[in-house]
Amino acid sequence: MKEISKLLGYRESIRVVDATLRDGGLCNDFYFTDDFVRALYQTNLKAGVDYMEVGYKASKDMFDVDKFGKWKFCNDDDIYEVIGENNTQLKLAVMADVGRTDYKTDIRERKDSPLDLIRVATYINQMPGAIHMIEDAKNKGYEVSCNIMAVTTAQEGDLKVALEMLGESPVDVIYIVDSFGSMYPEQLARMADMYMNVAEKYGKKIGMHAHNNQQLAFANTIEAVGDGVDWLDATYNGMGRGAGNCLMENLLAFLKNPKYNFYPAVVFVENHMMKLKEEGVHWGYDLQYMLTGVLNQHPRSAIRFTKEGRKDYSEFYKEIVGLD
Amino acid sequence: MKEISKLLGYRESIRVVDATLRDGGLCNDFYFTDDFVRALYQTNLKAGVDYMEVGYKASKDMFDVDKFGKWKFCNDDDIYEVIGENNTQLKLAVMADVGRTDYKTDIRERKDSPLDLIRVATYINQMPGAIHMIEDAKNKGYEVSCNIMAVTTAQEGDLKVALEMLGESPVDVIYIVDSFGSMYPEQLARMADMYMNVAEKYGKKIGMHAHNNQQLAFANTIEAVGDGVDWLDATYNGMGRGAGNCLMENLLAFLKNPKYNFYPAVVFVENHMMKLKEEGVHWGYDLQYMLTGVLNQHPRSAIRFTKEGRKDYSEFYKEIVGLD
Repeated sequence: MKEISKLLGYRESIRVVDATLRDGGLCNDFYFTDDFVRALYQTNLKAGVDYMEVGYKASKDMFDVDKFGKWKFCNDDDIYEVIGENNTQLKLAVMADVGRTDYKTDIRERKDSPLDLIRVATYINQMPGAIHMIEDAKNKGYEVSCNIMAVTTAQEGDLKVALEMLGESPVDVIYIVDSFGSMYPEQLARMADMYMNVAEKYGKKIGMHAHNNQQLAFANTIEAVGDGVDWLDATYNGMGRGAGNCLMENLLAFLKNPKYNFYPAVVFVENHMMKLKEEGVHWGYDLQYMLTGVLNQHPRSAIRFTKEGRKDYSEFYKEIVGLD
Repeated sequence: MKEISKLLGYRESIRVVDATLRDGGLCNDFYFTDDFVRALYQTNLKAGVDYMEVGYKASKDMFDVDKFGKWKFCNDDDIYEVIGENNTQLKLAVMADVGRTDYKTDIRERKDSPLDLIRVATYINQMPGAIHMIEDAKNKGYEVSCNIMAVTTAQEGDLKVALEMLGESPVDVIYIVDSFGSMYPEQLARMADMYMNVAEKYGKKIGMHAHNNQQLAFANTIEAVGDGVDWLDATYNGMGRGAGNCLMENLLAFLKNPKYNFYPAVVFVENHMMKLKEEGVHWGYDLQYMLTGVLNQHPRSAIRFTKEGRKDYSEFYKEIVGLD
């Protein structure tokens, strides 16, 4: 059981990362208005959020720039134009996927860029590619984190090797990523223990990125806090692929460091997130996502089910239970 | 951290209680159709649910029978008519609130009733009334449980005395009730520890009744399982007052005893719960409920906000933050 003294106090080392534009962008192909992005930025400043992830550095060879909003590519010049020089405490982050980014050319030297943190996202079979990207970003002067995605379908032995590789790399933060929203808090506690061992051995930080398929994204995130995890991803109103993520407003209400302020989050959800929902952008818990979460599957089948406007959940379950 | 051996196995002593008609009835004034109730009963049978709570035994002196559906009063004859003799493994339960029930006359001897379990609900300042009701129900032959409501606003010293009173009473099960949906899993773990001490001393069982204001109802319920709590309340699609309760379909997917079967729950949600939502019955997580949960307040202000169709969450927050 967690100690009361720890529950009433707070850890200075906690960092909150707003992933609304990045994970949320998967719901609307990154077509956020400039006004939305500016309001989000101002909200993060007021709320005391530590990092704002502005999107992906996706390869323009692989993805058509005319078919996505600009936050899929995050040109430095676009960031300067919408957000400005950002001479604030709030740091800016971007995600780059192994194999889907031209990082050598598209990620400039940090001194020439508005960005502070490069978040490398990788599958476990791509670790050497991830290590190259981590070294590249570190050499360019950035803080660097790494998400190993879909770890709930990886072998524990492989995962331990991958964590050792990251331990020996110059990465600053290693994320636990519950890509499919399949983890229960009790499983997360064991996973966090494994990651924390590497963190202690190599002087790294551990982060948590949760999905809400079973309405456990917030619960898993605060379980992670209790387990010593310091970097916490959240999105406003939980906006993110499929069932979405840990809700920023819930997380800010939970955290006790006085630098965090949850009222601006309430205002932002009221003025901007509810509007997106009214405009027809879909995210959040629904039965089809619970079903893929329970089965520890990628939510793509549930996203298709949602797009097709289907309501035959039991038929859907029978379709996906045979997919493994 | 919970042991892996315990996570993969299961506890025979777990009991699942379907509270859809009772807590869900607070959303539609108990106007469920007979077809709905019969389908729910059949679903609970197929799903292996242990108890089905059919509603309240509310006083007909205090409440107008013309203004509520029959499940607010749960006449034995209505139960016989809709559900029948119930010669099954599934036991039937009813809730009776201290001070709002004519239990002496309205609760018959168990041998003359379809009911198996009387669930006494009390506030902490009504304990002597609760003890009288527990003794009355026990003398009539029933299994008896007791919910002390709103414990998150009670003094710990008072709560310990109340638990001792229940320990010395003939009650079988004592429920932890997170009436306002304000508890975090880490707080629940401490609360469960206190209740479990009484359970061990007096040979009682402990139950969990969660609300979903912070999307923690399911998380708190499975935290409770890990803490030794055996009786678990849930409702289909989480239907219950305000933000609702632990989702039955999530809970059944989590539990590992092969007697539980979550597919019938998926079918029931698809065919019946989604229909209620389409008909305009409101329940489930929304920002206004999160705000009352965070403030550890009764959700009545948020229920009013919802009924009035308001969307000015930040104004609402300013109204309620000054109410304490």
